[in-house]
Amino acid sequence: MSALVLVGVALVVQKFGGTSVADAERIRAVADHVARTRRQGHQVVVVVSAMGKTTDELLRLADDVSRARPGRELDMLLSSGERITTALLCMALADLGTPAASFTGSQAGIITDTTHGRAKITEVRGDRLRQALAVGQVPVVAGFQGVSVARDVTTLGRGGSDTTAVALAATLGAQACEIYTDVSGVFSADPRIVPAARRLAAVSFDEMLEIAATGGRVLALRSVEFARNHGVPLHVRSSFTWEAGTWVKGEDESMEQSIVSAVTHDTTEAKVTVTGVPDRPGVAASLFRGLADRAVNVDMIVQNTSVRGTTDISFTVPKDDLAVSLEVALALAPTIGATDVLADPDVSRVSLVGAGMKTNPGVTAAMFETLAREGINIEMISTSSIRISCVIHTDAVEQAVQALHEAFELA
Amino acid sequence: MSALVLVGVALVVQKFGGTSVADAERIRAVADHVARTRRQGHQVVVVVSAMGKTTDELLRLADDVSRARPGRELDMLLSSGERITTALLCMALADLGTPAASFTGSQAGIITDTTHGRAKITEVRGDRLRQALAVGQVPVVAGFQGVSVARDVTTLGRGGSDTTAVALAATLGAQACEIYTDVSGVFSADPRIVPAARRLAAVSFDEMLEIAATGGRVLALRSVEFARNHGVPLHVRSSFTWEAGTWVKGEDESMEQSIVSAVTHDTTEAKVTVTGVPDRPGVAASLFRGLADRAVNVDMIVQNTSVRGTTDISFTVPKDDLAVSLEVALALAPTIGATDVLADPDVSRVSLVGAGMKTNPGVTAAMFETLAREGINIEMISTSSIRISCVIHTDAVEQAVQALHEAFELA
Repeated sequence: MSALVLVGVALVVQKFGGTSVADAERIRAVADHVARTRRQGHQVVVVVSAMGKTTDELLRLADDVSRARPGRELDMLLSSGERITTALLCMALADLGTPAASFTGSQAGIITDTTHGRAKITEVRGDRLRQALAVGQVPVVAGFQGVSVARDVTTLGRGGSDTTAVALAATLGAQACEIYTDVSGVFSADPRIVPAARRLAAVSFDEMLEIAATGGRVLALRSVEFARNHGVPLHVRSSFTWEAGTWVKGEDESMEQSIVSAVTHDTTEAKVTVTGVPDRPGVAASLFRGLADRAVNVDMIVQNTSVRGTTDISFTVPKDDLAVSLEVALALAPTIGATDVLADPDVSRVSLVGAGMKTNPGVTAAMFETLAREGINIEMISTSSIRISCVIHTDAVEQAVQALHEAFELA
Repeated sequence: MSALVLVGVALVVQKFGGTSVADAERIRAVADHVARTRRQGHQVVVVVSAMGKTTDELLRLADDVSRARPGRELDMLLSSGERITTALLCMALADLGTPAASFTGSQAGIITDTTHGRAKITEVRGDRLRQALAVGQVPVVAGFQGVSVARDVTTLGRGGSDTTAVALAATLGAQACEIYTDVSGVFSADPRIVPAARRLAAVSFDEMLEIAATGGRVLALRSVEFARNHGVPLHVRSSFTWEAGTWVKGEDESMEQSIVSAVTHDTTEAKVTVTGVPDRPGVAASLFRGLADRAVNVDMIVQNTSVRGTTDISFTVPKDDLAVSLEVALALAPTIGATDVLADPDVSRVSLVGAGMKTNPGVTAAMFETLAREGINIEMISTSSIRISCVIHTDAVEQAVQALHEAFELA
């Protein structure tokens, strides 16, 4: 990965999440690190989240005040958390003699649409940040927020500060975007389940997208997509150890093409099966339109080949959406001619992710053999070119992850 | 005061201070009051301070993080407090079915100079507030803050939210600016010292300025000056009882011209005397230039007529500035040829304020007689057309206030 070590004078965006700026001591540690990066001759743009529990405290205040939650006002409320962090970090930098200036999302030129709570960035004007850099200041930008085309404060939703950091890195032409967090990188499996799990030196954007989508909680999907689309190399690393972490970047020849990079798992979903559905056009459409209309985020969908003119459709949804999903499916059952609607909340998904799978067709078979050897029944299967996912009973998930990690020699 | 009761459809600015929005329950009570005012047919623009102890908590955070206090960053930090209140109040209003929209100082168009920490308003653009009013919303504005001509967040210093409210009332042509606080108006003396003190139904701007300058803590000087200069009637009242309080407005025929309206006192100052100063031009100038250069806010200055070519100069300063004042005076003593520099931290000022004094020369004599009868020695005297102040020993201040309140029949 030597090509990705910053050489010469580079511009780097450093993003620090909530646990990294949780208290005064942590903020001073972050200031030290930023000042050190500057002393190495690099230009730095910093993006910060709200301090530790600030967002929860603000939400609790809102709960105490009212039942109503106008999106515009919730955004005004929550965006204050990051602003506080920017000002405090600039003070800590001033203490170290490092000139810095705080910027709200609006001041940094993060322009969004008007969808409060999960606004999309439509434009990034980095003028004030470029001016600050030109006079030798470290711009410290409030993550997670922007200003809408209607001039209202907006927030970017889950993983929003990562998105801010990647968007700024793309706009300013940064050599890298460092995402500092409370884990030290992306691992070959969850280290709490597989103690021998290995930190990956590098993964491709596509692998990271599959890892994030199947249970790896380090980066939000959206910021990885943004980084891929704009070719911004990410470096996920720990603000507690400061050691090198995992690079996430475009595939290139220098990159080791592991057949399998990681085993991921996700225990947050539930399975719904609609049985005896007539095999005719429009049936699946009306079912999933009904779910979409209730804002249910359907993940995996599997439909068996029809036998005697009927088929079964299984799908997974977040556990929180199980009740409304059943309601929708039961209401539609007579219309679509389904026999039965079954629910199973005790399912989990185990996935293998690896860029090398594209050219190694044997992985699927090896995965099934491994699970069979462990006596684990597979309830649903779905694949992409670089991922295989199996839905299994939740009781077996740790055993499955450990067995797969060992079978594919990921340690 | 019937002329000042709001009749017909009026536009009123309602400002709520920190104790008025200290917690969720108080914010809901404020929302109730705003909604009620709207139901009476009035248009309302609300200005809020930070909740209770928020500002103190933010300052404590800053203390924990750094010794450096860049003004720009302190303003970014502190301004977040009012923003939180605006969002919460809008949520509480939404709960009551009253449409509302929060605005930062910047969004409300409060443009200031670049003096961080005590910025002066240079322009108020109320466009977004007028638009909100036009579509039936209650604009809720973050007090105490603006945006500088350099596009940075600024704060307006002590009493800043009152200044925001008055500036908006002037710009929007409001019929009145209601200042809700934790006291029920302006009193003829401090009720903690004089239980019989009477709430004044109305005082003139000039009286209010003298009351504020001599110890009445209800309104900051600056906002009263602003209201006087723009002819904005103020109504100081309680957000705990909601009863009518004290109107502060221009003098007119309807106004009762009390000879004396109030007895005020101030125990926050200390006295410095520079003795044996040669009576020649430039001596006072060099002394007070020296103090000004150290940012000492000199209040009263008394210079005796010269006797045998020398004179004594006494002045009062905030107790916090006593040490630096003595340092300045002692350093200059040889240059200006002074004999001695004396300090007395145990002084207080007792004042009588009343618009009718202008045409009643007997008040001064009656005040001195009252203090003499009580055996209270007067150390310094200063007067304006509607005020007389005496500096006395702090031990005697309560006795003096009580005696004057009774002698001038203010109960």
